[in-house]
Amino acid sequence: MTLDYDIIVIGGGHAGCEAASAAARLGSRTLLLTMDMDKMAAMSCNPAVGGVAKGQIVREIDALGGQMGRITDLTTIQFRMLNRSKGAAMWSPRAQCDKTRFSEEWRHTLENTWNLYIWQDAATELLFDKTPDTDPAQPNAPGSESDPKQDTPRSSTQNPRITGVRTRMGVEFTCRAVVLTSGTFLEGLMHCGASHAEGGRAGDAASHGITECLRKIGFETGRMKTGTPARLDARTIDFERLEPQYGDENPAKFSFSPETRPVKDQLPCFLVYTSSEVHDILRSGFDQSPLFNGTICGIGPRYCPSIEDKLRTFADKEQHQLFLEPEGRTTNEYYLNGFSSSLPWDVQWKALHKIEGFEDLHIYRPGYAIEYDFFPPTQLHHSLETKLVSGLYFAGQVNGTTGYEEAAAQGLMAGINAHRALVGEEPIVLKRDEAYIGVLIDDLVTKGVDEPYRMFTSRAEYRILLRQDNADIRLTPLGYKIGLIPQKRYEHFVKKNSLVESLVEFARRQSIKAAEINDYLKSVNSEPLTQGRKLYDILMRNNVTFESLQTVLPKLKKFIAENEIDAEVIEEAEIQIKYKGYIEREKFIAEKLHRLENISIPNDFDFHSMNSLTIEARQKLSRIRPTTIGQASRIPGVSPADVNVLLVKFGR
Amino acid sequence: MTLDYDIIVIGGGHAGCEAASAAARLGSRTLLLTMDMDKMAAMSCNPAVGGVAKGQIVREIDALGGQMGRITDLTTIQFRMLNRSKGAAMWSPRAQCDKTRFSEEWRHTLENTWNLYIWQDAATELLFDKTPDTDPAQPNAPGSESDPKQDTPRSSTQNPRITGVRTRMGVEFTCRAVVLTSGTFLEGLMHCGASHAEGGRAGDAASHGITECLRKIGFETGRMKTGTPARLDARTIDFERLEPQYGDENPAKFSFSPETRPVKDQLPCFLVYTSSEVHDILRSGFDQSPLFNGTICGIGPRYCPSIEDKLRTFADKEQHQLFLEPEGRTTNEYYLNGFSSSLPWDVQWKALHKIEGFEDLHIYRPGYAIEYDFFPPTQLHHSLETKLVSGLYFAGQVNGTTGYEEAAAQGLMAGINAHRALVGEEPIVLKRDEAYIGVLIDDLVTKGVDEPYRMFTSRAEYRILLRQDNADIRLTPLGYKIGLIPQKRYEHFVKKNSLVESLVEFARRQSIKAAEINDYLKSVNSEPLTQGRKLYDILMRNNVTFESLQTVLPKLKKFIAENEIDAEVIEEAEIQIKYKGYIEREKFIAEKLHRLENISIPNDFDFHSMNSLTIEARQKLSRIRPTTIGQASRIPGVSPADVNVLLVKFGR
Repeated sequence: MTLDYDIIVIGGGHAGCEAASAAARLGSRTLLLTMDMDKMAAMSCNPAVGGVAKGQIVREIDALGGQMGRITDLTTIQFRMLNRSKGAAMWSPRAQCDKTRFSEEWRHTLENTWNLYIWQDAATELLFDKTPDTDPAQPNAPGSESDPKQDTPRSSTQNPRITGVRTRMGVEFTCRAVVLTSGTFLEGLMHCGASHAEGGRAGDAASHGITECLRKIGFETGRMKTGTPARLDARTIDFERLEPQYGDENPAKFSFSPETRPVKDQLPCFLVYTSSEVHDILRSGFDQSPLFNGTICGIGPRYCPSIEDKLRTFADKEQHQLFLEPEGRTTNEYYLNGFSSSLPWDVQWKALHKIEGFEDLHIYRPGYAIEYDFFPPTQLHHSLETKLVSGLYFAGQVNGTTGYEEAAAQGLMAGINAHRALVGEEPIVLKRDEAYIGVLIDDLVTKGVDEPYRMFTSRAEYRILLRQDNADIRLTPLGYKIGLIPQKRYEHFVKKNSLVESLVEFARRQSIKAAEINDYLKSVNSEPLTQGRKLYDILMRNNVTFESLQTVLPKLKKFIAENEIDAEVIEEAEIQIKYKGYIEREKFIAEKLHRLENISIPNDFDFHSMNSLTIEARQKLSRIRPTTIGQASRIPGVSPADVNVLLVKFGR
Repeated sequence: MTLDYDIIVIGGGHAGCEAASAAARLGSRTLLLTMDMDKMAAMSCNPAVGGVAKGQIVREIDALGGQMGRITDLTTIQFRMLNRSKGAAMWSPRAQCDKTRFSEEWRHTLENTWNLYIWQDAATELLFDKTPDTDPAQPNAPGSESDPKQDTPRSSTQNPRITGVRTRMGVEFTCRAVVLTSGTFLEGLMHCGASHAEGGRAGDAASHGITECLRKIGFETGRMKTGTPARLDARTIDFERLEPQYGDENPAKFSFSPETRPVKDQLPCFLVYTSSEVHDILRSGFDQSPLFNGTICGIGPRYCPSIEDKLRTFADKEQHQLFLEPEGRTTNEYYLNGFSSSLPWDVQWKALHKIEGFEDLHIYRPGYAIEYDFFPPTQLHHSLETKLVSGLYFAGQVNGTTGYEEAAAQGLMAGINAHRALVGEEPIVLKRDEAYIGVLIDDLVTKGVDEPYRMFTSRAEYRILLRQDNADIRLTPLGYKIGLIPQKRYEHFVKKNSLVESLVEFARRQSIKAAEINDYLKSVNSEPLTQGRKLYDILMRNNVTFESLQTVLPKLKKFIAENEIDAEVIEEAEIQIKYKGYIEREKFIAEKLHRLENISIPNDFDFHSMNSLTIEARQKLSRIRPTTIGQASRIPGVSPADVNVLLVKFGR
């Protein structure tokens, strides 16, 4: 007997939860397979969502109809808009969450999602309709001389198709698509000094079988490494001697939906500092570090380094700032951000005790590193479907990324696209000027990864376009169109957006006389007017805001009051006005590049036949198989000259 | 480097949590070692506490100062006093709990217990000061001819002493006592049809190393088996067609402390029935049953059998009643009590779908069986300290018991006694007429187990004494004396108890005239008085209660009102009056047997030297090493004639 579903999502982490939620809500009968129902979307690392660039991703997930923003709002214990002092493109929302509540809210959400079924068990085998190496119709099976899986196109009709999943309990599920989101669990191996043990996370077993299955069918795999710091017992910390960091006075929130509210009763985080004494102790353990003595082969996240990595990279630095985060409202557990380590537990213990305020510290557990299998993401289409197996999608850490937000974004897109493929619709592929999610996925499938990939604003060419405030304007119409944004929520969006437009239009039309405003302008150190100007032009000046202008311009105040325009609308309109120049410039550049994006390269094109390309370009192009010249241009190793060759071949 | 504690508790289940809480509150610096902090006191099986005999144990735990009753009260979603229609000795409280909240409350409690520290990690090795087989001072090392560990007394000064614990993370903890409460995790192996996998519980890894360590030092070990049913998705159950079972209209609670309140807003459970169609499907899988085909070697719980066991044992029965229990207030997960199974998942699935109301059922996971290592508990002293290793205590399923309540009771006693040994105090050993806990532990260490041991009222000789209502009277003075019951709580108890006594005394003194009461007596079908009687005597009659008497006896009403006597006190006084005859008879028998309990047998006595004992008695006595003639008399295989021989030897 088998049980049949349209889509099976393997893994109940941040990627898997979004994937399952989206696929089910779009109408696919979906099974979420998780090893432990009590750990849905577990915050295995720090208890926070968002931050620079990541916060934008969460806003995008929410704008498309994903769940992460909403669930974050429901469980926030502290909210900060980072980079408020910088330009609006840099504003990045971050929330500390109650870890237990976050996971519980996710479980509650998933349990009550129509069309979604949960099964607690471990996936041990993927099932295909055929295997390439035994199928004679397959001309270039792995094992033949030229590493065919990389260099020779295989049309999707030749591909094996996913047909099901087998589990540890002996269950066989059939399905038409699988989204694999196994996180750090595939052949997970945890390290703490010389000790190592199998496991997917402290307290959880590893998952075996899937990697082997995929290797057999031709997938390239690799090992990555990540780490997590010690968890501390608040009762043994002298908080009086630490520097608190409080949440925003008027906290915002992640979801654009009016159904969530900003956090009340925020908890502080704390800044903590290492010292040269701490460093000396840590260094004394370097010879026993599995990171340094060759025990760990996987590549770690450059931008989330272990404390020992930081000491090596910044050998001169006499102190590092650490960030102490509460894990929830009702627990004494604290997370020590910045102190990730796989040094022996006693080295960690001794070093921690030299930190001011930690003299009597008890820890619940030391930090550890974990190595796990991933699949180089150049093996994926932009839809996140694998190039080798039809109906098989990868999302999250298995693609070599790091971060809950990056995982959730991929899960959402994989869930959407798995569903769309089943109902014969084109995949949703976000462009690099549409969303950080677009940047993320395009980077993954085009450039691959050589270390755990984390999003940064610097990875985006169009930062002014990809703001956290306008994620809804960018993506909610799409979310509505594909069916993830409910009618009511969409109407709320349309109303907000039309208010923004009407406020911008009001500013554009409204003439202001010098006499009306010069006193105000002086008060904000702005040049007085010599003649009347449009309100719009005045708003483009530094220090001039709608909020302050209301006090001197009764007609503005009246317009805002009459139209019931709220702070969110005002903020959006102001950003659109103030950043108009930048926005338009980026839009112009983006449009230009879109031309390249619109020139397709046939799926089965043989790049080796083009002698005018450099050999490196031929190899890289054959390997990545870009679908457009735009994508080809972003592949490392493909030069502008190569792009010109491609333009001659495929351009109009 | 090592970290030092007085006591280390291994395992964070029901036994471990009580042990750690008690040891720390008594003043020992205690470490609780758990593989997963997020699963403290996890309800791995059904989401309920109490029931027949088990409910009495929880009341006893509470009366002694343990936590289970309090935490149950805080997380109850339904409460029923079972057997209300029977005599007071049979009344048994049972609560359905919110599984997640229960675990969370425990964690919260433990995190905030002074002197208690939590460490998330797996214990892999126990450390001793010496090993018996390498120590030349040890005259009878295992391996020598006569199986010395069983037959020859070893004085505790010769014993190896526990000195510490090593963990999977490589940590070495030193300590002076260890309480081992590993539940089903030691070499745990889960079965579902032909599939089997290592694990301590669905979703959790097994624990390795400890059994081997203990075997090496001379412990006998065995395998036991338990099972759990499928978990169901409420959305796919047609509750309209099931028979609801609601909680009590006026729910009571477990804790004697005034700090908890009875549950509000109770949830119903449901009765569900199998049918011959369901049975036929289940039987079709019997050849693939690991229970029946020899795959499972461990012995299962007779009184909590799998559904396949029930079909075999009661082959004629055409239906079995099942009990559907909600797992919490905010989850769709339901537990199907009575359907525990290790049949292949598809057999379970098909059979479940034939149950009325389950036609569209989705399950979160199938049932499974689990085999695990246990240590025959005849290797323990009554203190729960092992006879082989000083400072090492066992509690819970490792002793071959089943049930949260049995585990918690042992954990509490082991925690208390581990602490008391460290401060040079005598262990607390409850007598069989003092507590079900006394019966439990005496049964374990005296009789051993040949299947998972579950408490029943029939195991107690003194059921009228061991009531749920008087657990505080029996045990709270002791809890206070040893330091687990706080002053305020004790004062509350003393006040309640003195009110009970004053009410009983009032009844004893108060004369009632026939005229005052005969109308009432007729109304409750009781013989009218012909002359005045004491109130006490009238209360001994059937159907006569304090509550109804108040309406006809203004002086009783006045006494109750003036003394602010509440329902709990009235109930207790009434039971003491109505059951006086039975209670006194049981007390008399108990006193008589106490005489045997008071005759000690020297620890190192050589039973083999007593030729007048039967050979079986000599062997059994040498093996169990009873400390009193009372205990000797309860050892299976020791006859009344053998007891007389012992009396001649050791009696006055």
